[in-house]
Amino acid sequence: MDKLYVIKIGGNVIDDANALSSFLQSFSRIESKKILVHGGGKLATRMAGQLGIPQAVVEGRRITDAETLKVVTMVYAGHINKNIVAGLQSHQCNAVGLTGADGNIITANKREKATVDYGFAGDIEKVNAGFLETLLDQSCVPVIASITHDGCGQLLNTNADTIANGVAKEMSRRYNVSLVYCFENEGVLRDVNDPLSVIRHIDKAEYSKLKTDGVISGGMIPKIDNAMQAIEHGVQTVIIGKAQQLPQLIETSAGTTIQ
Amino acid sequence: MDKLYVIKIGGNVIDDANALSSFLQSFSRIESKKILVHGGGKLATRMAGQLGIPQAVVEGRRITDAETLKVVTMVYAGHINKNIVAGLQSHQCNAVGLTGADGNIITANKREKATVDYGFAGDIEKVNAGFLETLLDQSCVPVIASITHDGCGQLLNTNADTIANGVAKEMSRRYNVSLVYCFENEGVLRDVNDPLSVIRHIDKAEYSKLKTDGVISGGMIPKIDNAMQAIEHGVQTVIIGKAQQLPQLIETSAGTTIQ
Repeated sequence: MDKLYVIKIGGNVIDDANALSSFLQSFSRIESKKILVHGGGKLATRMAGQLGIPQAVVEGRRITDAETLKVVTMVYAGHINKNIVAGLQSHQCNAVGLTGADGNIITANKREKATVDYGFAGDIEKVNAGFLETLLDQSCVPVIASITHDGCGQLLNTNADTIANGVAKEMSRRYNVSLVYCFENEGVLRDVNDPLSVIRHIDKAEYSKLKTDGVISGGMIPKIDNAMQAIEHGVQTVIIGKAQQLPQLIETSAGTTIQ
Repeated sequence: MDKLYVIKIGGNVIDDANALSSFLQSFSRIESKKILVHGGGKLATRMAGQLGIPQAVVEGRRITDAETLKVVTMVYAGHINKNIVAGLQSHQCNAVGLTGADGNIITANKREKATVDYGFAGDIEKVNAGFLETLLDQSCVPVIASITHDGCGQLLNTNADTIANGVAKEMSRRYNVSLVYCFENEGVLRDVNDPLSVIRHIDKAEYSKLKTDGVISGGMIPKIDNAMQAIEHGVQTVIIGKAQQLPQLIETSAGTTIQ
Protein backbone atom coordinates (compact mmCIF):
# COMPACT_ATOMS: atom_id res chain seq x y z
CA MET A 1 0.00 0.00 0.00
CA ASP A 2 1.16 3.56 -0.71
CA LYS A 3 2.20 5.74 2.21
CA LEU A 4 -0.23 8.56 3.08
CA TYR A 5 0.19 11.33 5.65
CA VAL A 6 -2.91 12.96 7.10
CA ILE A 7 -1.67 16.10 8.84
CA LYS A 8 -3.76 18.38 11.03
CA ILE A 9 -2.80 21.94 11.93
CA GLY A 10 -4.55 24.16 14.44
CA GLY A 11 -4.78 27.77 15.51
CA ASN A 12 -1.19 28.07 16.74
CA VAL A 13 0.01 27.70 13.12
CA ILE A 14 -2.91 29.31 11.30
CA ASP A 15 -2.88 32.48 13.43
CA ASP A 16 0.85 33.11 12.81
CA ALA A 17 1.64 34.11 9.20
CA ASN A 18 5.35 33.25 9.50
CA ALA A 19 4.70 29.90 11.17
CA LEU A 20 2.10 29.05 8.50
CA SER A 21 4.36 30.03 5.63
CA SER A 22 7.24 27.95 6.95
CA PHE A 23 4.89 25.02 7.68
CA LEU A 24 3.52 25.10 4.12
CA GLN A 25 7.05 24.96 2.73
CA SER A 26 7.91 21.90 4.87
CA PHE A 27 4.58 20.30 4.05
CA SER A 28 5.06 20.75 0.30
CA ARG A 29 8.40 18.92 0.53
CA ILE A 30 6.88 15.70 1.85
CA GLU A 31 7.33 13.31 -1.06
CA SER A 32 4.60 10.82 -0.12
CA LYS A 33 0.91 11.34 -0.74
CA LYS A 34 -0.57 13.74 1.79
CA ILE A 35 -3.75 15.40 3.03
CA LEU A 36 -3.87 18.57 5.13
CA VAL A 37 -6.72 19.21 7.58
CA HIS A 38 -7.16 22.62 9.22
CA GLY A 39 -9.49 24.44 11.56
CA GLY A 40 -9.81 28.17 11.88
CA GLY A 41 -7.85 29.46 14.83
CA LYS A 42 -8.87 32.73 16.37
CA LEU A 43 -9.84 34.42 13.09
CA ALA A 44 -13.43 33.20 13.16
CA THR A 45 -13.92 34.47 16.71
CA ARG A 46 -12.33 37.81 15.79
CA MET A 47 -14.48 38.10 12.63
CA ALA A 48 -17.65 37.29 14.60
CA GLY A 49 -16.65 40.02 17.06
CA GLN A 50 -16.13 42.55 14.25
CA LEU A 51 -19.55 41.67 12.84
CA GLY A 52 -21.17 41.98 16.27
CA ILE A 53 -22.24 38.34 16.40
CA PRO A 54 -22.29 37.18 20.04
CA GLN A 55 -20.40 33.91 20.60
CA ALA A 56 -22.12 31.58 23.03
CA VAL A 57 -19.89 28.96 24.64
CA VAL A 58 -21.33 26.14 26.77
CA GLU A 59 -18.98 23.81 28.65
CA GLY A 60 -16.05 24.96 26.54
CA ARG A 61 -17.81 24.32 23.24
CA ARG A 62 -18.89 27.04 20.87
CA ILE A 63 -22.56 27.08 19.92
CA THR A 64 -22.79 27.32 16.14
CA ASP A 65 -25.89 29.39 15.40
CA ALA A 66 -26.75 30.31 11.80
CA GLU A 67 -24.74 33.55 11.82
CA THR A 68 -21.73 31.85 13.42
CA LEU A 69 -21.88 29.06 10.81
CA LYS A 70 -21.77 31.71 8.09
CA VAL A 71 -18.69 33.29 9.67
CA VAL A 72 -17.01 29.91 10.17
CA THR A 73 -17.70 28.96 6.53
CA MET A 74 -16.32 32.29 5.29
CA VAL A 75 -13.19 32.14 7.43
CA TYR A 76 -12.35 28.40 7.30
CA ALA A 77 -13.46 27.44 3.78
CA GLY A 78 -12.84 30.88 2.23
CA HIS A 79 -10.03 32.96 3.65
CA ILE A 80 -7.89 30.32 5.38
CA ASN A 81 -8.44 27.41 2.99
CA LYS A 82 -7.81 29.42 -0.19
CA ASN A 83 -4.74 31.17 1.19
CA ILE A 84 -3.28 27.79 2.21
CA VAL A 85 -4.05 26.43 -1.28
CA ALA A 86 -2.44 29.44 -3.01
CA GLY A 87 0.57 29.16 -0.67
CA LEU A 88 1.04 25.47 -1.47
CA GLN A 89 0.66 26.16 -5.22
CA SER A 90 3.55 28.64 -4.93
CA HIS A 91 5.66 25.66 -3.77
CA GLN A 92 4.54 23.57 -6.78
CA CYS A 93 2.26 21.53 -4.53
CA ASN A 94 -0.99 20.99 -6.45
CA ALA A 95 -3.41 21.64 -3.59
CA VAL A 96 -7.20 21.38 -3.88
CA GLY A 97 -9.20 23.01 -1.07
CA LEU A 98 -12.28 21.15 0.11
CA THR A 99 -14.99 21.02 2.71
CA GLY A 100 -16.93 17.84 3.45
CA ALA A 101 -19.55 19.00 0.92
CA ASP A 102 -17.09 19.12 -2.00
CA GLY A 103 -17.12 15.80 -3.81
CA ASN A 104 -19.38 14.70 -0.93
CA ILE A 105 -16.26 13.60 0.97
CA ILE A 106 -17.68 13.92 4.51
CA THR A 107 -21.33 13.70 5.49
CA ALA A 108 -22.30 14.47 9.06
CA ASN A 109 -25.36 14.45 11.28
CA LYS A 110 -26.42 17.58 13.08
CA ARG A 111 -25.66 16.89 16.73
CA GLU A 112 -28.72 15.63 18.56
CA LYS A 113 -30.32 18.07 20.90
CA ALA A 114 -29.23 16.59 24.22
CA THR A 115 -29.05 18.86 27.26
CA VAL A 116 -27.34 21.49 25.10
CA ASP A 117 -28.30 22.57 21.58
CA TYR A 118 -24.97 23.00 19.81
CA GLY A 119 -26.66 24.45 16.74
CA PHE A 120 -25.10 23.63 13.36
CA ALA A 121 -22.47 21.26 14.71
CA GLY A 122 -22.00 17.98 12.87
CA ASP A 123 -20.80 14.56 13.97
CA ILE A 124 -19.22 12.58 11.12
CA GLU A 125 -21.50 10.03 9.51
CA LYS A 126 -19.33 8.85 6.63
CA VAL A 127 -16.03 9.67 4.94
CA ASN A 128 -16.19 8.87 1.22
CA ALA A 129 -12.63 7.95 0.36
CA GLY A 130 -13.18 7.50 -3.38
CA PHE A 131 -12.92 11.14 -4.40
CA LEU A 132 -9.92 11.75 -2.12
CA GLU A 133 -8.23 8.74 -3.74
CA THR A 134 -8.95 10.16 -7.22
CA LEU A 135 -7.28 13.44 -6.21
CA LEU A 136 -4.26 11.64 -4.71
CA ASP A 137 -3.94 9.52 -7.89
CA GLN A 138 -3.71 12.79 -9.86
CA SER A 139 -0.89 13.97 -7.57
CA CYS A 140 -3.27 16.51 -6.05
CA VAL A 141 -3.10 17.36 -2.36
CA PRO A 142 -6.48 17.68 -0.61
CA VAL A 143 -6.65 20.55 1.90
CA ILE A 144 -9.73 20.01 4.06
CA ALA A 145 -11.40 22.80 6.06
CA SER A 146 -13.33 21.62 9.12
CA ILE A 147 -16.81 22.04 7.61
CA THR A 148 -19.06 19.09 6.68
CA HIS A 149 -22.59 18.78 5.29
CA ASP A 150 -25.69 16.71 5.98
CA GLY A 151 -26.39 15.79 2.34
CA CYS A 152 -29.62 17.81 2.45
CA GLY A 153 -28.08 21.20 1.73
CA GLN A 154 -26.97 22.11 5.24
CA LEU A 155 -23.33 22.87 6.01
CA LEU A 156 -22.16 21.87 9.51
CA ASN A 157 -19.26 22.84 11.75
CA THR A 158 -17.14 19.80 12.69
CA ASN A 159 -14.04 19.62 14.88
CA ALA A 160 -10.83 19.49 12.81
CA ASP A 161 -9.20 16.81 15.02
CA THR A 162 -12.26 14.62 14.46
CA ILE A 163 -12.11 15.17 10.70
CA ALA A 164 -8.40 14.26 10.57
CA ASN A 165 -9.16 11.15 12.61
CA GLY A 166 -12.13 10.13 10.44
CA VAL A 167 -10.24 10.71 7.18
CA ALA A 168 -7.16 8.81 8.45
CA LYS A 169 -9.26 5.82 9.53
CA GLU A 170 -11.18 5.61 6.24
CA MET A 171 -8.06 6.08 4.10
CA SER A 172 -6.24 3.33 6.04
CA ARG A 173 -8.28 0.77 4.05
CA ARG A 174 -6.33 1.85 0.98
CA TYR A 175 -3.10 3.40 2.25
CA ASN A 176 -0.47 2.94 4.90
CA VAL A 177 -1.58 5.99 6.93
CA SER A 178 0.34 8.11 9.41
CA LEU A 179 -1.82 10.65 11.20
CA VAL A 180 0.10 13.71 12.39
CA TYR A 181 -1.41 16.13 14.91
CA CYS A 182 0.45 19.42 15.09
CA PHE A 183 -0.22 21.29 18.33
CA GLU A 184 1.50 23.77 20.66
CA ASN A 185 3.91 21.35 22.38
CA GLU A 186 6.78 19.25 21.06
CA GLY A 187 4.83 16.12 21.96
CA VAL A 188 3.04 14.52 24.89
CA LEU A 189 4.95 15.78 27.93
CA ARG A 190 5.88 13.73 31.01
CA ASP A 191 5.97 17.02 32.95
CA VAL A 192 3.69 19.76 31.58
CA ASN A 193 6.07 22.37 32.93
CA ASP A 194 9.06 20.92 31.08
CA PRO A 195 8.75 21.32 27.29
CA LEU A 196 11.70 18.96 26.82
CA SER A 197 10.09 16.04 28.68
CA VAL A 198 8.54 14.58 25.54
CA ILE A 199 7.40 10.97 25.82
CA ARG A 200 8.80 9.58 22.57
CA HIS A 201 6.70 6.42 22.23
CA ILE A 202 3.37 5.30 23.63
CA ASP A 203 1.69 1.96 23.07
CA LYS A 204 -1.48 0.59 24.62
CA ALA A 205 0.20 -0.91 27.70
CA GLU A 206 2.34 2.19 28.26
CA TYR A 207 -0.74 4.43 27.91
CA SER A 208 -2.60 2.54 30.66
CA LYS A 209 0.39 2.93 32.94
CA LEU A 210 0.78 6.67 32.15
CA LYS A 211 -2.88 7.24 32.95
CA THR A 212 -2.73 5.21 36.17
CA ASP A 213 0.36 7.13 37.26
CA GLY A 214 -1.41 10.43 36.49
CA VAL A 215 1.31 11.44 33.98
CA ILE A 216 -1.31 11.81 31.24
CA SER A 217 -4.42 13.63 32.39
CA GLY A 218 -7.00 16.25 31.50
CA GLY A 219 -7.24 17.35 27.88
CA MET A 220 -4.54 14.93 26.71
CA ILE A 221 -6.72 11.90 27.54
CA PRO A 222 -9.36 12.40 24.79
CA LYS A 223 -6.52 13.25 22.32
CA ILE A 224 -4.71 9.99 23.02
CA ASP A 225 -7.95 8.00 23.27
CA ASN A 226 -8.72 9.18 19.72
CA ALA A 227 -5.21 8.27 18.59
CA MET A 228 -5.54 4.78 20.10
CA GLN A 229 -8.92 4.34 18.45
CA ALA A 230 -7.42 5.39 15.07
CA ILE A 231 -4.69 2.75 15.49
CA GLU A 232 -7.34 0.11 16.28
CA HIS A 233 -9.11 1.09 13.04
CA GLY A 234 -6.07 0.52 10.86
CA VAL A 235 -4.03 3.73 11.05
CA GLN A 236 -0.38 2.68 11.28
CA THR A 237 1.05 5.50 13.39
CA VAL A 238 -0.21 8.63 15.14
CA ILE A 239 2.41 11.33 15.68
CA ILE A 240 1.83 14.31 17.97
CA GLY A 241 4.16 17.30 17.95
CA LYS A 242 4.98 20.83 16.89
CA ALA A 243 4.28 22.08 13.36
CA GLN A 244 7.72 23.72 13.27
CA GLN A 245 9.24 20.23 13.49
CA LEU A 246 7.19 18.69 10.68
CA PRO A 247 10.19 17.14 8.85
CA GLN A 248 11.34 15.48 12.09
CA LEU A 249 7.80 14.39 12.97
CA ILE A 250 7.52 12.65 9.58
CA GLU A 251 10.80 10.82 10.28
CA THR A 252 9.55 10.11 13.86
CA SER A 253 12.77 11.71 15.13
CA ALA A 254 10.70 14.23 17.13
CA GLY A 255 7.29 14.27 18.80
CA THR A 256 5.35 11.45 20.41
CA THR A 257 4.71 8.37 18.29
CA ILE A 258 1.68 6.28 19.16
CA GLN A 259 1.51 2.78 17.74
CA MET B 1 -16.84 15.32 -28.49
CA ASP B 2 -18.94 15.28 -25.31
CA LYS B 3 -21.34 18.14 -24.71
CA LEU B 4 -20.33 20.57 -21.93
CA TYR B 5 -22.31 23.48 -20.53
CA VAL B 6 -20.41 26.34 -18.86
CA ILE B 7 -23.03 28.34 -17.00
CA LYS B 8 -22.46 31.67 -15.29
CA ILE B 9 -24.78 33.14 -12.68
CA GLY B 10 -24.58 36.62 -11.21
CA GLY B 11 -25.89 38.68 -8.35
CA ASN B 12 -29.54 38.62 -9.39
CA VAL B 13 -29.63 34.86 -8.66
CA ILE B 14 -27.09 34.71 -5.81
CA ASP B 15 -28.74 37.50 -3.82
CA ASP B 16 -32.18 35.84 -3.90
CA ALA B 17 -32.37 32.61 -1.84
CA ASN B 18 -35.50 31.34 -3.61
CA ALA B 19 -34.17 32.11 -7.09
CA LEU B 20 -30.87 30.38 -6.22
CA SER B 21 -32.56 27.30 -4.80
CA SER B 22 -34.76 26.91 -7.86
CA PHE B 23 -31.80 27.55 -10.20
CA LEU B 24 -29.72 24.86 -8.45
CA GLN B 25 -32.53 22.35 -8.90
CA SER B 26 -32.76 23.11 -12.66
CA PHE B 27 -28.99 23.08 -12.98
CA SER B 28 -28.67 19.69 -11.27
CA ARG B 29 -31.13 18.20 -13.78
CA ILE B 30 -28.94 19.01 -16.81
CA GLU B 31 -27.82 15.58 -17.95
CA SER B 32 -24.72 16.67 -19.89
CA LYS B 33 -21.40 17.54 -18.29
CA LYS B 34 -21.51 20.99 -16.73
CA ILE B 35 -19.49 23.67 -14.95
CA LEU B 36 -21.00 26.49 -12.86
CA VAL B 37 -19.23 29.86 -12.53
CA HIS B 38 -20.41 32.42 -10.00
CA GLY B 39 -19.50 35.84 -8.67
CA GLY B 40 -20.61 37.29 -5.39
CA GLY B 41 -23.54 39.61 -5.80
CA LYS B 42 -24.13 42.26 -3.22
CA LEU B 43 -23.03 40.14 -0.26
CA ALA B 44 -19.37 41.12 -0.50
CA THR B 45 -20.23 44.81 -0.58
CA ARG B 46 -22.59 44.38 2.37
CA MET B 47 -19.98 42.39 4.33
CA ALA B 48 -17.31 45.04 3.63
CA GLY B 49 -19.76 47.65 4.92
CA GLN B 50 -20.43 45.68 8.11
CA LEU B 51 -16.69 45.35 8.67
CA GLY B 52 -16.17 49.07 8.06
CA ILE B 53 -13.95 48.54 5.00
CA PRO B 54 -14.40 51.48 2.60
CA GLN B 55 -15.11 50.39 -0.99
CA ALA B 56 -13.33 52.50 -3.58
CA VAL B 57 -14.83 52.40 -7.06
CA VAL B 58 -13.06 54.01 -10.04
CA GLU B 59 -14.83 54.20 -13.40
CA GLY B 60 -17.38 51.62 -12.29
CA ARG B 61 -14.76 49.09 -11.17
CA ARG B 62 -14.15 48.13 -7.60
CA ILE B 63 -10.61 48.60 -6.32
CA THR B 64 -9.56 45.37 -4.60
CA ASP B 65 -7.29 46.38 -1.72
CA ALA B 66 -5.96 43.71 0.67
CA GLU B 67 -8.92 43.95 3.06
CA THR B 68 -11.44 43.85 0.21
CA LEU B 69 -9.69 40.78 -1.27
CA LYS B 70 -10.07 39.07 2.10
CA VAL B 71 -13.80 39.85 2.17
CA VAL B 72 -14.25 38.76 -1.45
CA THR B 73 -12.42 35.48 -0.76
CA MET B 74 -14.52 34.83 2.35
CA VAL B 75 -17.82 35.61 0.65
CA TYR B 76 -17.26 34.15 -2.86
CA ALA B 77 -15.06 31.12 -2.11
CA GLY B 78 -16.44 30.49 1.39
CA HIS B 79 -20.07 31.37 2.03
CA ILE B 80 -21.50 31.43 -1.50
CA ASN B 81 -19.42 28.65 -3.07
CA LYS B 82 -19.91 26.18 -0.22
CA ASN B 83 -23.64 26.83 0.07
CA ILE B 84 -24.02 26.28 -3.67
CA VAL B 85 -22.01 23.04 -3.40
CA ALA B 86 -24.10 21.80 -0.44
CA GLY B 87 -27.29 22.76 -2.30
CA LEU B 88 -26.24 20.82 -5.41
CA GLN B 89 -25.23 17.82 -3.29
CA SER B 90 -28.79 17.77 -1.89
CA HIS B 91 -29.93 17.22 -5.50
CA GLN B 92 -27.47 14.33 -5.96
CA CYS B 93 -25.24 16.55 -8.08
CA ASN B 94 -21.64 15.81 -7.05
CA ALA B 95 -20.36 19.40 -6.96
CA VAL B 96 -16.78 20.38 -6.15
CA GLY B 97 -16.21 24.04 -5.27
CA LEU B 98 -13.06 25.64 -6.63
CA THR B 99 -11.18 28.88 -7.08
CA GLY B 100 -8.50 29.30 -9.74
CA ALA B 101 -5.92 28.29 -7.11
CA ASP B 102 -7.47 24.87 -6.49
CA GLY B 103 -5.87 22.32 -8.78
CA ASN B 104 -4.12 25.35 -10.30
CA ILE B 105 -7.03 25.66 -12.74
CA ILE B 106 -6.72 29.41 -13.45
CA THR B 107 -3.57 31.49 -13.14
CA ALA B 108 -3.82 35.24 -13.56
CA ASN B 109 -1.58 38.28 -13.67
CA LYS B 110 -2.14 41.15 -11.27
CA ARG B 111 -3.47 43.94 -13.46
CA GLU B 112 -0.68 46.29 -14.52
CA LYS B 113 -0.65 49.65 -12.85
CA ALA B 114 -1.93 51.81 -15.69
CA THR B 115 -3.62 55.09 -14.86
CA VAL B 116 -5.58 53.33 -12.12
CA ASP B 117 -4.24 50.80 -9.58
CA TYR B 118 -6.99 48.20 -9.32
CA GLY B 119 -5.21 46.45 -6.46
CA PHE B 120 -5.50 42.65 -6.30
CA ALA B 121 -7.39 42.29 -9.58
CA GLY B 122 -6.23 39.54 -11.91
CA ASP B 123 -6.40 39.13 -15.69
CA ILE B 124 -6.45 35.48 -16.76
CA GLU B 125 -3.11 34.11 -17.89
CA LYS B 126 -3.97 30.45 -18.38
CA VAL B 127 -6.84 28.02 -17.81
CA ASN B 128 -5.52 24.52 -17.08
CA ALA B 129 -8.22 22.27 -18.46
CA GLY B 130 -6.66 18.99 -17.30
CA PHE B 131 -7.91 19.02 -13.74
CA LEU B 132 -11.38 20.18 -14.79
CA GLU B 133 -11.49 17.29 -17.27
CA THR B 134 -10.49 14.84 -14.52
CA LEU B 135 -13.37 16.08 -12.38
CA LEU B 136 -15.86 15.87 -15.26
CA ASP B 137 -14.64 12.32 -16.05
CA GLN B 138 -15.51 11.40 -12.45
CA SER B 139 -19.03 12.80 -12.93
CA CYS B 140 -18.12 15.70 -10.66
CA VAL B 141 -19.46 19.19 -11.32
CA PRO B 142 -16.93 22.01 -10.88
CA VAL B 143 -18.37 25.12 -9.21
CA ILE B 144 -15.92 27.97 -9.76
CA ALA B 145 -15.87 31.12 -7.61
CA SER B 146 -14.44 34.19 -9.36
CA ILE B 147 -11.07 34.16 -7.58
CA THR B 148 -7.80 33.29 -9.30
CA HIS B 149 -4.14 33.18 -8.21
CA ASP B 150 -0.79 34.28 -9.57
CA GLY B 151 1.06 31.03 -8.85
CA CYS B 152 3.25 32.82 -6.31
CA GLY B 153 0.86 32.60 -3.38
CA GLN B 154 -1.31 35.62 -4.16
CA LEU B 155 -5.07 35.25 -4.64
CA LEU B 156 -6.63 37.70 -7.14
CA ASN B 157 -10.13 38.97 -7.83
CA THR B 158 -11.23 38.22 -11.41
CA ASN B 159 -14.49 39.05 -13.15
CA ALA B 160 -16.86 36.04 -13.25
CA ASP B 161 -17.93 36.69 -16.88
CA THR B 162 -14.28 36.63 -17.90
CA ILE B 163 -13.70 33.37 -16.01
CA ALA B 164 -16.71 31.71 -17.67
CA ASN B 165 -15.44 32.93 -21.05
CA GLY B 166 -11.87 31.72 -20.43
CA VAL B 167 -12.99 28.31 -19.14
CA ALA B 168 -15.43 27.83 -22.06
CA LYS B 169 -12.74 28.69 -24.63
CA GLU B 170 -10.15 26.36 -23.12
CA MET B 171 -12.62 23.49 -22.65
CA SER B 172 -13.78 23.81 -26.28
CA ARG B 173 -10.58 22.02 -27.32
CA ARG B 174 -11.97 18.89 -25.67
CA TYR B 175 -15.73 19.36 -25.55
CA ASN B 176 -18.61 20.68 -27.60
CA VAL B 177 -19.15 23.74 -25.36
CA SER B 178 -22.23 25.89 -24.86
CA LEU B 179 -21.58 28.96 -22.72
CA VAL B 180 -24.67 30.22 -20.90
CA TYR B 181 -24.75 33.69 -19.33
CA CYS B 182 -27.63 34.13 -16.90
CA PHE B 183 -28.46 37.78 -16.29
CA GLU B 184 -31.44 39.95 -15.38
CA ASN B 185 -33.21 39.99 -18.77
CA GLU B 186 -34.76 37.23 -20.86
CA GLY B 187 -32.14 37.79 -23.53
CA VAL B 188 -30.66 40.60 -25.60
CA LEU B 189 -33.55 43.03 -26.10
CA ARG B 190 -34.44 44.86 -29.31
CA ASP B 191 -36.12 47.49 -27.12
CA VAL B 192 -34.67 47.84 -23.60
CA ASN B 193 -38.07 48.97 -22.35
CA ASP B 194 -39.84 45.87 -23.67
CA PRO B 195 -38.77 42.71 -21.81
CA LEU B 196 -40.49 40.58 -24.46
CA SER B 197 -38.49 42.00 -27.38
CA VAL B 198 -35.81 39.29 -27.13
CA ILE B 199 -33.60 38.93 -30.19
CA ARG B 200 -33.59 35.13 -30.55
CA HIS B 201 -30.52 34.66 -32.75
CA ILE B 202 -27.45 36.74 -33.46
CA ASP B 203 -24.62 35.87 -35.84
CA LYS B 204 -21.65 37.97 -36.89
CA ALA B 205 -23.38 39.74 -39.79
CA GLU B 206 -26.54 40.35 -37.76
CA TYR B 207 -24.46 41.73 -34.88
CA SER B 208 -22.77 44.33 -37.14
CA LYS B 209 -26.17 45.43 -38.38
CA LEU B 210 -27.64 45.65 -34.84
CA LYS B 211 -24.71 47.79 -33.73
CA THR B 212 -24.92 50.06 -36.78
CA ASP B 213 -28.65 50.50 -36.22
CA GLY B 214 -28.00 51.36 -32.58
CA VAL B 215 -30.20 48.46 -31.37
CA ILE B 216 -27.30 47.02 -29.38
CA SER B 217 -25.39 49.65 -27.44
CA GLY B 218 -23.77 50.49 -24.11
CA GLY B 219 -23.05 47.65 -21.71
CA MET B 220 -24.36 44.97 -24.10
CA ILE B 221 -21.52 45.62 -26.58
CA PRO B 222 -18.65 44.22 -24.46
CA LYS B 223 -20.91 41.28 -23.46
CA ILE B 224 -21.60 40.34 -27.07
CA ASP B 225 -18.03 41.13 -28.16
CA ASN B 226 -16.89 38.56 -25.59
CA ALA B 227 -19.48 36.08 -26.83
CA MET B 228 -18.32 36.55 -30.46
CA GLN B 229 -14.72 36.13 -29.39
CA ALA B 230 -15.61 32.88 -27.54
CA ILE B 231 -17.26 31.56 -30.72
CA GLU B 232 -14.16 32.45 -32.73
CA HIS B 233 -12.10 30.44 -30.22
CA GLY B 234 -14.13 27.27 -30.63
CA VAL B 235 -17.14 27.64 -28.33
CA GLN B 236 -20.15 26.28 -30.22
CA THR B 237 -22.92 28.47 -28.84
CA VAL B 238 -23.28 31.35 -26.40
CA ILE B 239 -26.72 31.69 -24.82
CA ILE B 240 -27.80 34.78 -22.89
CA GLY B 241 -30.95 34.78 -20.78
CA LYS B 242 -32.66 34.56 -17.43
CA ALA B 243 -31.60 32.01 -14.80
CA GLN B 244 -35.26 31.18 -14.14
CA GLN B 245 -35.48 29.87 -17.73
CA LEU B 246 -32.41 27.63 -17.54
CA PRO B 247 -34.15 24.51 -18.96
CA GLN B 248 -35.39 26.55 -21.95
CA LEU B 249 -32.02 28.25 -22.41
CA ILE B 250 -30.35 24.82 -22.60
CA GLU B 251 -32.86 23.80 -25.30
CA THR B 252 -32.35 27.23 -26.96
CA SER B 253 -36.12 27.70 -26.80
CA ALA B 254 -35.61 30.92 -24.80
CA GLY B 255 -32.94 33.61 -24.57
CA THR B 256 -30.58 34.92 -27.21
CA THR B 257 -28.42 32.39 -29.01
CA ILE B 258 -25.16 33.62 -30.49
CA GLN B 259 -23.46 31.40 -33.04
